[in-house]
Amino acid sequence: MMSDPHARLERLTSMLRRRGVILPAFEIHGGVAGLFDFGPMGGRLRRRLNNAWLEHWATQGDIVEIDSPTITPESVLIASGHVGEFNDHMSECNGCGGAFRSDHLVEGFHPNPDVLAPKDLDKLISDNNVNCLTCGAIDWKDAQPMNLMFSTRIGAMKGGRTAYMRPETAQGMFMLFPALYHHFRNRLPFGAVQTGKGYRNEISPRQGMIRLREFNMAELEYFIDPEVESNHDFSNWDSCLFNLVPDPEFSEPIEMSPGEASAGNIIRHPTVAWFMARTWDFLVSVGIDPTKIRFRQHEGTEMAHYASDCWDAEIHGSYGWIECVGIAHRGCYDLAAHESATGDNNLRAWRPYDEPMEVDKMIVAGKGSVIGPAFKEKAGLVNSALEALEGMSPVFPFDLKLTDGTMVTIDENMVEEKRIQATEHGEWFLPHVVEPAFGIDRILWHVLDHAYDETEKGGAPYTVLRLDPSIAAIDVAILPLMEKDGLDEVAHDIHRQICSTRNLSSYYDGSGSIGRRYARADEVGVPWAVTVDHESMQDNTVTIRRRDDGAQVRIQVDELVENLAMSTISSVF
Amino acid sequence: MMSDPHARLERLTSMLRRRGVILPAFEIHGGVAGLFDFGPMGGRLRRRLNNAWLEHWATQGDIVEIDSPTITPESVLIASGHVGEFNDHMSECNGCGGAFRSDHLVEGFHPNPDVLAPKDLDKLISDNNVNCLTCGAIDWKDAQPMNLMFSTRIGAMKGGRTAYMRPETAQGMFMLFPALYHHFRNRLPFGAVQTGKGYRNEISPRQGMIRLREFNMAELEYFIDPEVESNHDFSNWDSCLFNLVPDPEFSEPIEMSPGEASAGNIIRHPTVAWFMARTWDFLVSVGIDPTKIRFRQHEGTEMAHYASDCWDAEIHGSYGWIECVGIAHRGCYDLAAHESATGDNNLRAWRPYDEPMEVDKMIVAGKGSVIGPAFKEKAGLVNSALEALEGMSPVFPFDLKLTDGTMVTIDENMVEEKRIQATEHGEWFLPHVVEPAFGIDRILWHVLDHAYDETEKGGAPYTVLRLDPSIAAIDVAILPLMEKDGLDEVAHDIHRQICSTRNLSSYYDGSGSIGRRYARADEVGVPWAVTVDHESMQDNTVTIRRRDDGAQVRIQVDELVENLAMSTISSVF
Repeated sequence: MMSDPHARLERLTSMLRRRGVILPAFEIHGGVAGLFDFGPMGGRLRRRLNNAWLEHWATQGDIVEIDSPTITPESVLIASGHVGEFNDHMSECNGCGGAFRSDHLVEGFHPNPDVLAPKDLDKLISDNNVNCLTCGAIDWKDAQPMNLMFSTRIGAMKGGRTAYMRPETAQGMFMLFPALYHHFRNRLPFGAVQTGKGYRNEISPRQGMIRLREFNMAELEYFIDPEVESNHDFSNWDSCLFNLVPDPEFSEPIEMSPGEASAGNIIRHPTVAWFMARTWDFLVSVGIDPTKIRFRQHEGTEMAHYASDCWDAEIHGSYGWIECVGIAHRGCYDLAAHESATGDNNLRAWRPYDEPMEVDKMIVAGKGSVIGPAFKEKAGLVNSALEALEGMSPVFPFDLKLTDGTMVTIDENMVEEKRIQATEHGEWFLPHVVEPAFGIDRILWHVLDHAYDETEKGGAPYTVLRLDPSIAAIDVAILPLMEKDGLDEVAHDIHRQICSTRNLSSYYDGSGSIGRRYARADEVGVPWAVTVDHESMQDNTVTIRRRDDGAQVRIQVDELVENLAMSTISSVF
Repeated sequence: MMSDPHARLERLTSMLRRRGVILPAFEIHGGVAGLFDFGPMGGRLRRRLNNAWLEHWATQGDIVEIDSPTITPESVLIASGHVGEFNDHMSECNGCGGAFRSDHLVEGFHPNPDVLAPKDLDKLISDNNVNCLTCGAIDWKDAQPMNLMFSTRIGAMKGGRTAYMRPETAQGMFMLFPALYHHFRNRLPFGAVQTGKGYRNEISPRQGMIRLREFNMAELEYFIDPEVESNHDFSNWDSCLFNLVPDPEFSEPIEMSPGEASAGNIIRHPTVAWFMARTWDFLVSVGIDPTKIRFRQHEGTEMAHYASDCWDAEIHGSYGWIECVGIAHRGCYDLAAHESATGDNNLRAWRPYDEPMEVDKMIVAGKGSVIGPAFKEKAGLVNSALEALEGMSPVFPFDLKLTDGTMVTIDENMVEEKRIQATEHGEWFLPHVVEPAFGIDRILWHVLDHAYDETEKGGAPYTVLRLDPSIAAIDVAILPLMEKDGLDEVAHDIHRQICSTRNLSSYYDGSGSIGRRYARADEVGVPWAVTVDHESMQDNTVTIRRRDDGAQVRIQVDELVENLAMSTISSVF
């Protein structure tokens, strides 16, 4: 029974629910598929994992944290391509009206069904006589693309406008590119991170925490100059052989260090390899089993609309291999798309030439005799904005944004082409972007899955959740030997002292035998348990017990709190 | 000019935008009123304030952190009253179609217009010949209630259902009451906190960070037994005289300690007074000027639909007195509403009697001859569920939820009333809730407003943002005296060392004179600046400068990092 993976998954899910770690949301109202709560034992766990992620990237020194809205106006997501491209194919049953993801219906009939075109999906469904999962009928409408964004409206009445809940946090970083460029004093490379909710209106969510309609994302957009050679030091990972699964068109699966894979062009861009290595570090630091990580390169057909190369970090657990991180080279896709949609010219970076260049070139210049009368006091602004178009070839008529924010329309008769000679010191270019995008819920799920250890004690089943102490929801359980003789008061005092210490959290548990209380703490992953007994009343010492091996040590309360606060408590054993 | 508050507000807003603290969101796409970004100098500031809030409540020892979805199914918000009651009145202009909050149109004509009924609003608009703010017309439709929730749909096609973006985080805690009660081993009082996004589809947002369409909330729901006398120790605040503005029907504004105000029944419930005191502590700890805090009691007519008493913590700043925290006694409104909407009987707590009671009572019991054939193998579950209805008087037919989650319908002919004698040891009751609800963005705004100090240096204007070091976005600026002779490399090393230290963040700034760089750091509130000079190359010392008074000390780099990490750096001066 212990070795049946499905039964183990059921027991783990049930423990997480019973102990208030992760629960189906809105359950008293019947629940909603794909929405979960982090309960009393899950909220801090989630936040600590999130903070660990932010701190991991902050160490790099060239990455800042930003926070942008989840409600996103339609124009942003038209420019980014999500309104057109962020779709799954859906098949609807003519029998009952049930809607399903078409690729889910043909799993088992194709190795990678989410890369298939609608007609191929329809053919597989039909060839294999796939039944409706609800009513059993075999009577399907043709597969249709369904946009996966939650839509809403901002404002009321005639002034209202369409918006969507963001499908990714990345657009917030692109919107802020001008502020980031200014903050970093105009020097690439630099990055920005954001954590927060992302939304995906799944057709038929399943697999627990794997496929959610609202999820915790953590994304890093790292802006680089494509003409500057990246110089990453991979020596820390020389002895780490990563499991790499390149696009089968190019290579077989292979075990190789990231430095070697980058040098051998198996990973095409060194900055992608760098973030794969740093991602591996993060995953291992929060408790993912390193033998259960692999990196899989996207095949051409499954690549997102914005990516020019993408490697997924997949983690193996109860649901098989699951994509938990995507590390994509987005090229200049997004900045170019927003530039072209808005005409804003602040999405570029400046690349100085080594030597100034004398150039002979054609520019578009305003005709004074037309611009003056047409724009009056704004004529100067119009002329400057036309000069700033340098190098672009506008199609007339076009809209031009002035530095004061107003938009004007430029006709062909307002401008003339001029041949000029100029000395140029550099050029404006669109930075490229490498994006590691993390699904925090999926990682958290695998942290729990890998930590969940079904063992036995005295012949009976016994489970321990071997969470890394740096992310455990509760640091310490405080257990009075009995709830009388003042032991409970001393225990409460220690509990309050620990809770009042920064970054520490404890709980008080006075009911049941000590063994029973240890078991309750072990089951939910509390790394340390403190027992208060009669001796404690005399000399202010307590017993501290280590979750992972049950080892116990007598210690002064002050020493206990100090070592917990400094994360040095292991040293007292 | 320095003393013109409007000009000061403009300068502050402009600095926050220029330096990347707070910026209008989606600006390159034209922006959306009521949506803001926290930029490179704002993201960490926001998160630290949020974490400070969570840590503040965690010290109490009986409060846990949870996290629930922002997408909320309609049935939850019908039960909570938001679908019916979460409205503002809107007046629409017949001239241009512009929509405005009716109470905003009559500001200046009434002391507290948001308490007015629609006909009173219409009368004030008409009596005062209020012009449309857009087109100037005086031609208004009657004021109409407009629901302020963002609506969306979960799922596709026929299976889709209406949902809303949550207007408050509180409902997530009510949904989790059963898990919380279990976690706290069935003992009241206890609380749960949640921070995250809340949404309010404002008709016409204004006032910058004060009135947002998407905002950062932080709410605490504290569950108590209304029959147990609360026992709070107010002695810490004996010498703190709070500015209290009770409902004018009962009392004049008064300065009084919270203990005294509770004892004198000016604050009606001691737990409300307790959370007012703890709220005051929090606000002061993050840098709110204590002389600019007052507590105002809601008048009967302005109370939210769920509240039986409510005090706002208002903070004074550039926009006058602004509500930043609401501390509401919600009674058992929410739990009762969800119980009645769902029939779920897990929203109660158990109150044991001091002595068991013999009672003589009527109960509803299943008729074996009907229940058996009707429900077969579930007959036992149906009988238990009927017994659990004890004390309720169902109206037939009604839906009954079994412990395995299935719902069955009970007709009148399936049950009989029985008179029984029983010994009762206690009773199930609906806990009451006291809720402190914080608007994190409004508090953050006032933290910035109170920290923004326009002073002068050498006769020229000079601004310093006197943020508390515990929440500043950046802890240290690292400044090489010049970017040559290897000083820049040493500075980069120190920068990376600090960024790799938990909870610390620095930035490197090499451009411009040292004075100019100090000024840039002071303007955005960096508490410490470190200068690397030629001496540093020799003996590994640097100069540390304190923002608030410019004092400087020479210090070893290791000592610097250690003191920064321990928040003891002040002690070296």
